[in-house]
Amino acid sequence: MRDIQNENDIRNIPLQKVGVKNVKYPIVVLDKVHGKQQTSATVDLFVNLPHNYKGTHMSRFIEVFHKYHQNLSMTHFLEMLDEMRKKLNAEKSFCSITFPYFIEKKAPVSESPAVMQYVCSYEACSSEDGSDFYVTIEVPIATLCPCSKAISEYGAHNQRGLVKVKVLYTEFFWIEDVISMIESCASTPLYSLLKRKDEKYVTEYAYDNPRFVEDVVREVYLGLDKMNFSYFSVEAETEESIHNHNAYAFTEKTR
Amino acid sequence: MRDIQNENDIRNIPLQKVGVKNVKYPIVVLDKVHGKQQTSATVDLFVNLPHNYKGTHMSRFIEVFHKYHQNLSMTHFLEMLDEMRKKLNAEKSFCSITFPYFIEKKAPVSESPAVMQYVCSYEACSSEDGSDFYVTIEVPIATLCPCSKAISEYGAHNQRGLVKVKVLYTEFFWIEDVISMIESCASTPLYSLLKRKDEKYVTEYAYDNPRFVEDVVREVYLGLDKMNFSYFSVEAETEESIHNHNAYAFTEKTR
Amino acid sequence: MRDIQNENDIRNIPLQKVGVKNVKYPIVVLDKVHGKQQTSATVDLFVNLPHNYKGTHMSRFIEVFHKYHQNLSMTHFLEMLDEMRKKLNAEKSFCSITFPYFIEKKAPVSESPAVMQYVCSYEACSSEDGSDFYVTIEVPIATLCPCSKAISEYGAHNQRGLVKVKVLYTEFFWIEDVISMIESCASTPLYSLLKRKDEKYVTEYAYDNPRFVEDVVREVYLGLDKMNFSYFSVEAETEESIHNHNAYAFTEKTR
Amino acid sequence: MRDIQNENDIRNIPLQKVGVKNVKYPIVVLDKVHGKQQTSATVDLFVNLPHNYKGTHMSRFIEVFHKYHQNLSMTHFLEMLDEMRKKLNAEKSFCSITFPYFIEKKAPVSESPAVMQYVCSYEACSSEDGSDFYVTIEVPIATLCPCSKAISEYGAHNQRGLVKVKVLYTEFFWIEDVISMIESCASTPLYSLLKRKDEKYVTEYAYDNPRFVEDVVREVYLGLDKMNFSYFSVEAETEESIHNHNAYAFTEKTR
Repeated sequence: MRDIQNENDIRNIPLQKVGVKNVKYPIVVLDKVHGKQQTSATVDLFVNLPHNYKGTHMSRFIEVFHKYHQNLSMTHFLEMLDEMRKKLNAEKSFCSITFPYFIEKKAPVSESPAVMQYVCSYEACSSEDGSDFYVTIEVPIATLCPCSKAISEYGAHNQRGLVKVKVLYTEFFWIEDVISMIESCASTPLYSLLKRKDEKYVTEYAYDNPRFVEDVVREVYLGLDKMNFSYFSVEAETEESIHNHNAYAFTEKTR
Repeated sequence: MRDIQNENDIRNIPLQKVGVKNVKYPIVVLDKVHGKQQTSATVDLFVNLPHNYKGTHMSRFIEVFHKYHQNLSMTHFLEMLDEMRKKLNAEKSFCSITFPYFIEKKAPVSESPAVMQYVCSYEACSSEDGSDFYVTIEVPIATLCPCSKAISEYGAHNQRGLVKVKVLYTEFFWIEDVISMIESCASTPLYSLLKRKDEKYVTEYAYDNPRFVEDVVREVYLGLDKMNFSYFSVEAETEESIHNHNAYAFTEKTR
Repeated sequence: MRDIQNENDIRNIPLQKVGVKNVKYPIVVLDKVHGKQQTSATVDLFVNLPHNYKGTHMSRFIEVFHKYHQNLSMTHFLEMLDEMRKKLNAEKSFCSITFPYFIEKKAPVSESPAVMQYVCSYEACSSEDGSDFYVTIEVPIATLCPCSKAISEYGAHNQRGLVKVKVLYTEFFWIEDVISMIESCASTPLYSLLKRKDEKYVTEYAYDNPRFVEDVVREVYLGLDKMNFSYFSVEAETEESIHNHNAYAFTEKTR
Repeated sequence: MRDIQNENDIRNIPLQKVGVKNVKYPIVVLDKVHGKQQTSATVDLFVNLPHNYKGTHMSRFIEVFHKYHQNLSMTHFLEMLDEMRKKLNAEKSFCSITFPYFIEKKAPVSESPAVMQYVCSYEACSSEDGSDFYVTIEVPIATLCPCSKAISEYGAHNQRGLVKVKVLYTEFFWIEDVISMIESCASTPLYSLLKRKDEKYVTEYAYDNPRFVEDVVREVYLGLDKMNFSYFSVEAETEESIHNHNAYAFTEKTR
């Protein structure tokens, strides 16, 4: 049977990335409390394609990923990437997976338990010379506006927001630890379940801790720096309760 | 050339709707201030299909819509729907269009002008016996939680939300008038541009007007009732600033 | 502590639905092959609110759902709904959960295994008089256009599409069985992994089985009817490869 | 009134970007046929923030954008960006706007007219030393798989896809010209309206012009190179009709 992908291409244009995108797959990742967590991922898998090849073999991406999907700890993720590169005869392989990660969290006063979702991504590029591996963690928070509090007789606008950090993986860490640190930088963390006494606590706590998006990214910057990540970026986006658009701030540690 | 769609179907299953979906088209609608407003719509166009026909003729939907797209006042919208029904030899025709509608709005104290977007839909079904035509209007607002205000020493959680009303069209009305009424039912309307003195005003105004989602839909209900719509529904969904999920309320006028 | 929600409301407007929306939670559902499947859901939880109450108690929804989330078989889902109704002192309770469901599937010739995702929903309303429970299943398929095949010298446009069925639950059934039936009604089922000999098989199979969206919904109608569902609806939407919009058909079994 | 944003920050962390995101605004851009086109945009506006300032003044972004929104030709876009930088006392300003752009297009045989939508973006960064301005254009196309055609007795899977090019703006060009070139690189362009004779033409045309995603990005690369853009990237993503995931290829001109 003819193998067109393997034929010669004379246009002399190498492709940086070719592969499959938006693959939906169940995966298993590590969990600090329960050991393992089964969740569902959106997956992109690419390799580079030299100028003289007409196409890549798309089915091989799924073959390799299928083999690893039940055990995607950070270290197995990199192993999978190496195998993909070799199986596709490529110089570079890329993979990104995005998945909801669930953690049980107690309300601050009543201690009622409920589950929070945090969206996470692993994103890596592997070559013979090694790999770059980034972990992205999204943490929903609330911010209470310091300007609104300062200029108003009473009240202060506050809103839900999302902090997104991207860190360069160099040694193993728990996603849970980064999430806790980020939540401590907000006007208040969010909860899935709050009884009335919790709501009072959270309302007053936020009023006592006003934060601009600018403050949130700076506080998170200090926190990540203390955790010794060699590179990271931080962004925060808040769904301003007085506008129909969002406030945004971004910073990164320069290497 | 063979016309398979026109051939006989023996499975004896009539189809309630068949047609085209997610068509992206520029449209022109009426504007209370400027006479006309050019905007962009997502369009669904359907007819019913009797059990004995194999298929419908999809290109005719676009032909009819194209003819009308530069003039989609509410009355022309119904005319278009009738023409579609006849051209497709159907008993019923359906159309829904969803579009952003823009209105200039001044800040409450500084009176600085800026534009707000409101997402609107027209949705109608036409048959020989007449038509049902619904207009949906989405208005972003803020709510400040009455419970949080009552139980806390200071502050109160507040958040952006969205009110969505769907009214049965019986006679002409301005979208602008429904939007103003809805905004008056919120803890505060939203603005695209607020200077510091506006922000102080809006913050205090919201604190003075706490509203649950339940309150908002009830107030809007009373407002639509006064405007004499014979049928309507109201829903409100707020992006709770202390949770990562939304609060929701829905009611409708029973006919 | 003041309980505003419990206070009297004098506006005389009952609310059909009030509660929480877009809650993200891990859940466990039944799996025909493995017994149980852990996945992640988007959850809406509502009750009705009589005209004389000011508000509902939002935290109770999460309390009840949390108790059941590790065991959401179809029968436990209805139990949960009853408990929610009672705990909220309501006449009616509503719940909908939407989740990706994963099934391993072999390629048609090479039999290479890979996983496919199918989005499913449970949606129910419970009252003292009993409950209505609908299960929705979305199955991606391909259609090859019979008209394009008939009028062209060679080739035929084909595309990915999505079939969505909603069935009234009366007795237990396996989601897997509905999915197999739907896939047999398409020009071809989809696969996550196809080797070259599989691709040849699937290409020719689709060319031998041309289907309009109208054909697909009629074939699925016949299939669901044979499975004895007392009520169901079927819709198909295909991402036409020659247009930038979709073709659509809908039918339902009238009770 | 206190101006907290203007106060001193001692954390010593400069922010690369701070501003407003997801602003919805009507805009007017140039149109090759009609002179001007009114459409609707999603807008992000940022500046950098030196380490010693606590916050930025968010309302000024909207003030500047409002002034320019009725006239956003490529050159006015850059002017707006300069004014924003000065008004915010920043070293750098950033703006991206994304908008649907509409072009009337005739069917290939019947010449029936209808409108196609193409999503476009302007994205620029301005500093005292000049500016980088990128224009992104998304063009929906169809691809017919060369492998499927070669190995199958008859038929070939084909599907809708999206080509996305990003070019560095150095001198004025018409979006329309880039779109035409991209459409000529596909297995077939898409149309909003095709009569039966058009459908026959398009079906056979696609079968005569099989293209992998790899082929499409290489052909578009050659086309952009001929148009003398000094930098560009090209990506193509196709909604594979035999899979539930997409095929993808990316390349860029190295400077």
